[in-house]
Amino acid sequence: MINIGFDVFGGDNSPNAAVAAAVKFAKENGDVKITLYGKEAIINDLISEEISNIEIVNATEKIEGNDEPTIAIRRKKDSSMVIGANALKNCEVDCLLSAGNTGALVAAGVFIVRRIKGIDRPALPGLMPSTNRNKPVMLLDLGANIEAKEEHLMQYAKMANIYMQSILQVKEPEVGLLNIGAEENKGTDLYKNTYQNLSASELKFVGNIEARDILTTKHDIIVMDGFTGNMVLKTLEGSIALFNDTLKSVFLANIKTKIGALLVKSRLKSFKENMDYKEIGATPILGLNKLVLKAHGSSDERAFYSALKSAKVMIEADLINEMKRGLENE
Amino acid sequence: MINIGFDVFGGDNSPNAAVAAAVKFAKENGDVKITLYGKEAIINDLISEEISNIEIVNATEKIEGNDEPTIAIRRKKDSSMVIGANALKNCEVDCLLSAGNTGALVAAGVFIVRRIKGIDRPALPGLMPSTNRNKPVMLLDLGANIEAKEEHLMQYAKMANIYMQSILQVKEPEVGLLNIGAEENKGTDLYKNTYQNLSASELKFVGNIEARDILTTKHDIIVMDGFTGNMVLKTLEGSIALFNDTLKSVFLANIKTKIGALLVKSRLKSFKENMDYKEIGATPILGLNKLVLKAHGSSDERAFYSALKSAKVMIEADLINEMKRGLENE
Repeated sequence: MINIGFDVFGGDNSPNAAVAAAVKFAKENGDVKITLYGKEAIINDLISEEISNIEIVNATEKIEGNDEPTIAIRRKKDSSMVIGANALKNCEVDCLLSAGNTGALVAAGVFIVRRIKGIDRPALPGLMPSTNRNKPVMLLDLGANIEAKEEHLMQYAKMANIYMQSILQVKEPEVGLLNIGAEENKGTDLYKNTYQNLSASELKFVGNIEARDILTTKHDIIVMDGFTGNMVLKTLEGSIALFNDTLKSVFLANIKTKIGALLVKSRLKSFKENMDYKEIGATPILGLNKLVLKAHGSSDERAFYSALKSAKVMIEADLINEMKRGLENE
Repeated sequence: MINIGFDVFGGDNSPNAAVAAAVKFAKENGDVKITLYGKEAIINDLISEEISNIEIVNATEKIEGNDEPTIAIRRKKDSSMVIGANALKNCEVDCLLSAGNTGALVAAGVFIVRRIKGIDRPALPGLMPSTNRNKPVMLLDLGANIEAKEEHLMQYAKMANIYMQSILQVKEPEVGLLNIGAEENKGTDLYKNTYQNLSASELKFVGNIEARDILTTKHDIIVMDGFTGNMVLKTLEGSIALFNDTLKSVFLANIKTKIGALLVKSRLKSFKENMDYKEIGATPILGLNKLVLKAHGSSDERAFYSALKSAKVMIEADLINEMKRGLENE
């Protein structure tokens, strides 16, 4: 029976939204067991009924969003994240899902769960909606590593390729390189050389992709170093937040605009849903020996629910072994 | 009498929009002369009347958007951009304004106009609107240099500081460093060390600024390397374009949404104007011996008009000499 390890003390809306999603998911999926890590008394208070396929493992500490990752992992031995990572390492669960401190989760992955042989650095991907695709596009690395060398970018591309094949059933994923221009001689040496390496590889490389085309790309994978990835991701977050705020203030300005809002509401909603990370679930930290899944830090119940759904999919698709096999065949 | 050199064969809407803006500006500003560089016959066809303070200098070639910058500058000696740059070098005009190929304009600046002593690399700044300021914020470098060292980032900060003081009358400009987190130990070595250097400088350093806060920042200047700057700029461009497309398709969907659009129109327009680069004018390439101004590549008549307006302001404020004096006092 599949056993999903779930750190319910991470993210802005935990433990309440996390526990609520776990209860809903456990009830609907009798073939899945969920092991919750966190303060047992608090979790118990949130679960009003007996649910046979939920287990609670007490964790007295919590890793905070502003904790320094490696220090937190070393010192907070009794935190929900570290206990969960150790359980995963010891094969007590099939994955660890957390919406907590991203850096700490990567550190727990590297130092407790360990990397796949041949992978120097794990990558943190993001699954993004694109207006020109019905499947999300994978961007990586979004900041698991601040600096990257050529071999790392190649490893990122290969891992994303395997993910797209085994989880999203894309036969020949199209791989692009984020860069400051379309031509092959653009960018820093790291990017120029990676362009050549990707061209020479077995991957279906489609060339450079400019940042202005991320939200509308037709391709499957966009590779970048973690510093750039973090910048791009946060720029997108900032603009989306500003648009939402703007629309809200425009629509709520007066009675006329409120009526206007009502008239366009359903159309706008469908766009918003299309661009919504809450439907996308969790993303695996790629390159680890076992399945560690990151849910968005501001996940609500719906986002946690789809994160659990995607955890089940990835376990059933045997993502980690696909990854190991795929990387060995290089 | 001020003499604005204007390459009217650069950008998406040249020469028509560029010439139209020049005519309007020349008529309204009898104390300014405008020297237009480009194909004389075509320009003459666009000007229906005699305007005493417009001069046309014939240039048979044009640098295209996809020309390789340094090669174009070397080979297209009779292009509007190169002729204009030489005129500026020879003090025939007080500035060169162009909406053409950015890389080529930077190259023309470095190889023809030359840098200010003590500046290793010029920087391409962008003046951006922010929802929390009534003055634009200066981001730099947006890609004049693909790679930057610590001393370059410091030079960028100092030049932006002088610009903000002498052109936008900000007494003590607040300088931030774009980075992946707020804490001082964040980012690559380049960013960690720059944090320390900025802290130790005379500048009013406010710390790291995350990319998600660019559009809403209260500070005056955000410093970054050119590769990152280009990524961030294009990510913003991409999201704004998508936002506009989405609103258009939402509002034009059916009769109900069209009425909705009418009801919110004026509110939305005021937001759009607030976020509009067309009002912002041109940005100087900082670090050059004379004033070279970049207008947005998709400038229309209104944008070119405000670019001419800002050129006049910068000449009158004696920006270049302020820059030289300010850098000498270091």
